[in-house]
Amino acid sequence: MPIVVQKYGGSSLADAESIKRVARRIAETRKGGHEVVVAVSAMGDTTDELLDLAQGVSPLPPPRELDMLLTAGERISMALVAMAIHDLGLTARSFTGSQAGVITDGVHGRAKIIDVTPGRITGALEDGHVVIVAGFQGVSQTTKEITTLGRGGTDTTAVALAAALGAEVCEIYTDVDGVFTADPRIVPAARKLSRISAEEMLELAASGSKVLHLRSVEYARRYDIPIHVRSSFTPKEGTIVSDHPGPEGEAVEAPIIAGVAHDLSEAKITVVGVPDQTGKAAQIFHAVAVAEINIDMIVQNVSATETGLTDISFTLPKTDGQRGMQALQAIQAQVGFAGLQYDDQIGKLSLVGAGMRSNPGVSATFFRALADAGVNIEMISTSEIRISVVTRSELLDEAVRAVHTAFGLDSEDGEAVVHAGTGR
Amino acid sequence: MPIVVQKYGGSSLADAESIKRVARRIAETRKGGHEVVVAVSAMGDTTDELLDLAQGVSPLPPPRELDMLLTAGERISMALVAMAIHDLGLTARSFTGSQAGVITDGVHGRAKIIDVTPGRITGALEDGHVVIVAGFQGVSQTTKEITTLGRGGTDTTAVALAAALGAEVCEIYTDVDGVFTADPRIVPAARKLSRISAEEMLELAASGSKVLHLRSVEYARRYDIPIHVRSSFTPKEGTIVSDHPGPEGEAVEAPIIAGVAHDLSEAKITVVGVPDQTGKAAQIFHAVAVAEINIDMIVQNVSATETGLTDISFTLPKTDGQRGMQALQAIQAQVGFAGLQYDDQIGKLSLVGAGMRSNPGVSATFFRALADAGVNIEMISTSEIRISVVTRSELLDEAVRAVHTAFGLDSEDGEAVVHAGTGR
Repeated sequence: MPIVVQKYGGSSLADAESIKRVARRIAETRKGGHEVVVAVSAMGDTTDELLDLAQGVSPLPPPRELDMLLTAGERISMALVAMAIHDLGLTARSFTGSQAGVITDGVHGRAKIIDVTPGRITGALEDGHVVIVAGFQGVSQTTKEITTLGRGGTDTTAVALAAALGAEVCEIYTDVDGVFTADPRIVPAARKLSRISAEEMLELAASGSKVLHLRSVEYARRYDIPIHVRSSFTPKEGTIVSDHPGPEGEAVEAPIIAGVAHDLSEAKITVVGVPDQTGKAAQIFHAVAVAEINIDMIVQNVSATETGLTDISFTLPKTDGQRGMQALQAIQAQVGFAGLQYDDQIGKLSLVGAGMRSNPGVSATFFRALADAGVNIEMISTSEIRISVVTRSELLDEAVRAVHTAFGLDSEDGEAVVHAGTGR
Repeated sequence: MPIVVQKYGGSSLADAESIKRVARRIAETRKGGHEVVVAVSAMGDTTDELLDLAQGVSPLPPPRELDMLLTAGERISMALVAMAIHDLGLTARSFTGSQAGVITDGVHGRAKIIDVTPGRITGALEDGHVVIVAGFQGVSQTTKEITTLGRGGTDTTAVALAAALGAEVCEIYTDVDGVFTADPRIVPAARKLSRISAEEMLELAASGSKVLHLRSVEYARRYDIPIHVRSSFTPKEGTIVSDHPGPEGEAVEAPIIAGVAHDLSEAKITVVGVPDQTGKAAQIFHAVAVAEINIDMIVQNVSATETGLTDISFTLPKTDGQRGMQALQAIQAQVGFAGLQYDDQIGKLSLVGAGMRSNPGVSATFFRALADAGVNIEMISTSEIRISVVTRSELLDEAVRAVHTAFGLDSEDGEAVVHAGTGR
């Protein structure tokens, strides 16, 4: 029988009723003639509740023990899903990440999957069981310690299982209907995409779209696993993420632009008055790298000839802001810059589409739309299939709508739907 | 360094403050020059909450998945205790039952420990860590499935670890000050025992005393591990359970009677009008055994000569009452008895003491005390160091007090203490 891997997130497993609904959907897939392997997240807010417990006993809990704690969340949900499936007359076996053979490196809190050895899963499938696997977790190759993959890691678990098992498709069940041309909460006319290339999805995920975890898209692209993003609340088809054309050659008709992503999670640090000498920028970014901070966009001003000084700005996750400032303050005397500015009132807008490779007019239309909407641009970065700009955060929604309209992405019938109270 | 194993139950781990207090006590023991290995239960009511979740998705959850679910409780508490210890400047490593090498048979829900292979524990101790182990759980030898030991199983985990590690002592921390001559909630004058033999403790635990889990006492006796039962709420010494005399020869001065236990958890089934023929009783108890019900006391009336019929009564856990009645109803026609009576208004009182072996006056004093208190006796059973009787449940407290006084067990200064709201 062909294998389908399904992933259900915390919002699809919020309570007993949700778990029973998920079990019914799994049972339907099984009865429809597929082997089913399911990766589950922790129920609802469980992970946050466990983090609160940890904070209650220790302000800086050791990462090994934090992983041990958090993995209890998926253990609870996987056992409950297995029970609910049993109650429908099928048999199910739940497995922890370790039991399922999800082998990772040893970095607690953000481990990377380096191998999947699914012997117990295939054994259980051969015995006729539905298999439920705890998402978000694995076991380190060398030390046999329990690890977690970081927030959103269950998407990656599902894709990695799909790759290891040779699954037909990896279905990611979530609380929205699929991948949209923009966030429907900001652009009510946003349309659901029936198909998107993995390359474009990767750029959208890296640009703030939260519907799929970035690493899971990387993994799916590397192992050529089609992902089907769909809602666990309706039977409707969602969005297929694949670099291959669909059965009716849908990818051939792909539009120039896949969508508009936005991101309010970043801040900007400006290093003011940096001596315009070889090696100064290297010192700055070395210090940031040592602090294990991922920087995103960088702008260096043209040096003012009379002073020999320049400003360097870069963006980084707000959550890393304090650490970034501290790392730079520590090297101020050594580098000899004048000061630091921290700005967390920025927003990033990204336009993504494989079609922009062969359509030179895209950037002109893009900047025209922003200018017409009165949006000032502070930073720009591009890839082959993406243009990103940083603006004031309060202008971001308007900017997203303007760009969405300019590229003809607005739906005519306003069909875009997110489920009340669950959209994200 | 000598090794101490400590066990903390759910009531000692009810919230963040309790966990921090437990961590301080562990740290003191470590700093006092001992290696420390700790077995923990799930926090407070976690196990009941997880059982409620299971009931929410399935009326009859499969035992394998129930074990997978329940073991999340100890995983949470062990990680939190390890974090709290880190916060005190020591290092700690938590291990699941499986990681700690607690090998069991494959009976989900009430597995028995068959071996402990503590390689990871000793490795962590050698690296200078405090070790925290999830109680109540293990992994089955043949199928590598996660198992649980049944309610109270963390006591057994602790004793099994102490035996495997050659620990000096197994300290069982609880919410009472030790083992008392009777339940202080019923007998305010009950005294804490400073020492009790494992043999007597076994009889007390089998007779309704809840301070130690029966199987843990069996295990400690078999492997000759001294248990120190004490309160996690005070630094006071508790009760040593050991068949060896203490440093000052305390066991030599042991009183005739160790204590009075009571039990309200049993019911009585009477099979009425059983034909007084060979094999009828065997049929009845075979049916009960097949239903996997543990019966306790049995009484068969003298047969009434004129009818050739007799009555057989036995006691069993109330929780097995319904199953017991069904098993007997199913064989009524075959055995030919007249009917069944179910009585859950009984109470059992047991007097335990190694000294009764050589003191023939014990039973006379015992029955005199009950008679003087107006307590009618419905069933009697004895072992070499125990006398148990069944009475009406509403007379039980009065009976316990009468016997306690008759054997001179009442303390003169009324020192017995249970902590408000936590006594059990």
